[in-house]
Amino acid sequence: MKVAFIGMGTMGAPMALNILKAGHEVVVYNRTREKELPLVDAGAMRAGTPREAAAVAGIIITCVSDTPDVEDVVLGDEGIIHGATAGSLMIDMSTISPAATRQMAAKLADKKVRMIDAPVSGGSEGAQNATLAIMVGGESEDVQHAMPVLEAMGKTITHVGRIGSGQITKAINQVILAGTFMGVAEGMVLGMKAGLDMQKVAEAISGGAAGSWVLSNRAMNMVNNTYPLGFRTKLHHKDLRIALEAAREMGATLPASALMDQIENGIIGRGYGDEDMSAIARVIRELAGIVSPVES
Amino acid sequence: MKVAFIGMGTMGAPMALNILKAGHEVVVYNRTREKELPLVDAGAMRAGTPREAAAVAGIIITCVSDTPDVEDVVLGDEGIIHGATAGSLMIDMSTISPAATRQMAAKLADKKVRMIDAPVSGGSEGAQNATLAIMVGGESEDVQHAMPVLEAMGKTITHVGRIGSGQITKAINQVILAGTFMGVAEGMVLGMKAGLDMQKVAEAISGGAAGSWVLSNRAMNMVNNTYPLGFRTKLHHKDLRIALEAAREMGATLPASALMDQIENGIIGRGYGDEDMSAIARVIRELAGIVSPVES
Repeated sequence: MKVAFIGMGTMGAPMALNILKAGHEVVVYNRTREKELPLVDAGAMRAGTPREAAAVAGIIITCVSDTPDVEDVVLGDEGIIHGATAGSLMIDMSTISPAATRQMAAKLADKKVRMIDAPVSGGSEGAQNATLAIMVGGESEDVQHAMPVLEAMGKTITHVGRIGSGQITKAINQVILAGTFMGVAEGMVLGMKAGLDMQKVAEAISGGAAGSWVLSNRAMNMVNNTYPLGFRTKLHHKDLRIALEAAREMGATLPASALMDQIENGIIGRGYGDEDMSAIARVIRELAGIVSPVES
Repeated sequence: MKVAFIGMGTMGAPMALNILKAGHEVVVYNRTREKELPLVDAGAMRAGTPREAAAVAGIIITCVSDTPDVEDVVLGDEGIIHGATAGSLMIDMSTISPAATRQMAAKLADKKVRMIDAPVSGGSEGAQNATLAIMVGGESEDVQHAMPVLEAMGKTITHVGRIGSGQITKAINQVILAGTFMGVAEGMVLGMKAGLDMQKVAEAISGGAAGSWVLSNRAMNMVNNTYPLGFRTKLHHKDLRIALEAAREMGATLPASALMDQIENGIIGRGYGDEDMSAIARVIRELAGIVSPVES
């Protein structure tokens, strides 16, 4: 299968590499052109624009930062929509607005270009090891057609519903993270204030109803006040904005997510946006006057 | 070992029964006297007051509702403190204030009565099956002394620190639950508003960073709008009050927990306090105008 891959970022570059490794032909494009070079060394071809990349491929993948970036790559003057051939399939693997996704799909459909949305979770490590979780929205036959390429990048591939459903599922994931991270951060700070051995406490409760991936994998970041990546706060904040916009459009009320969004505003404003999102604990710690790694 | 057990509630009665089954002599007392009878049928003796129960036992266990109840049973006119012999050990397995716990321990120490705090999690099922998680605060030698009795009631027994530490650990557990339940409820409602198959969505994300016991075990309650026990909302609300009081005393700020506390106020006020705490989703659903089990 010939695959165009647009977006050679922290996620896109290793994902494109895994498609190459799976034996597909790959044509790459990135706005900052030199980021294409490692892929060319690995055997990929280059295209001069998204339009040119789309013109030569049956499957066109986009993996860029945010809604306007995907819109530019798809609908812009040199966009995919002007190059893609009838019957080709576009897979957007960025995390963007579900509503914008459906609007782009409708415009592509006018040109007989199909589209599915397939945002991922699992971070750069998952992208490198092809162990991403991929949440897919679209028509079943299109998802089936994409499957060999998706399987080259991810481990858990779930078709959740119609176009846009992948993005909503990703938004749900980020909303759940918001509440879980706040709960764990507040719990850790309460225990630190009381002078408890938080490693022991986390062990005591992680097997029960309070157990979570966040408690098992991020609580000690909060206790030690070090926040190595992980998942960047500013990326979660961007994704949470998408979730809150979707809630606004659909008429849902997400009070805990809104609280997390506000706290992340401040974390990012103070220069911690590139830390892991467990840096939420910075604020809860500081509100409680805990500055050193552990202090009772 | 001769054990006095005070409090034959939903938790206390099966816990006392498990101590009997492990081969210890048990003396029971309960304010509502007829609740002692099933234990008597199983081989326990009865005492007329907490003081009388304490007088004949080397280990005195309390498992009652709230801080004033423990204070009454320990310090009241017919309280444990007036009967317990020097060298005996009191184990409070109620969920109460850490500060009140330390105050009672100090008063008991004046009479040479030792005390540890050992609140539990795992619900009535855990109490019946002796699979409770027990979080213990106190001196190591006292915890060692209590261990045969604790092991008759629970599976995971963690000594987390000095007296009161068990209660703080339980408070941390409830704080983490507050955030996690809100995150999962908000995520489920967002997906329901979008008309997604939430069973599929939960499966797609539960293996990743958003995964938690709550997501795996309570999300479908929220989707189906049925909240079988489980863990009563009003008990979580009581425990969260203890956590928020501890935060107030120690000077910690717990914004998500405070939000959950307010939402639970309304749930209980409307008559849903005896439902499982996943009933938090009632509010988030209703704010989004979702009334039927699943509606897009």
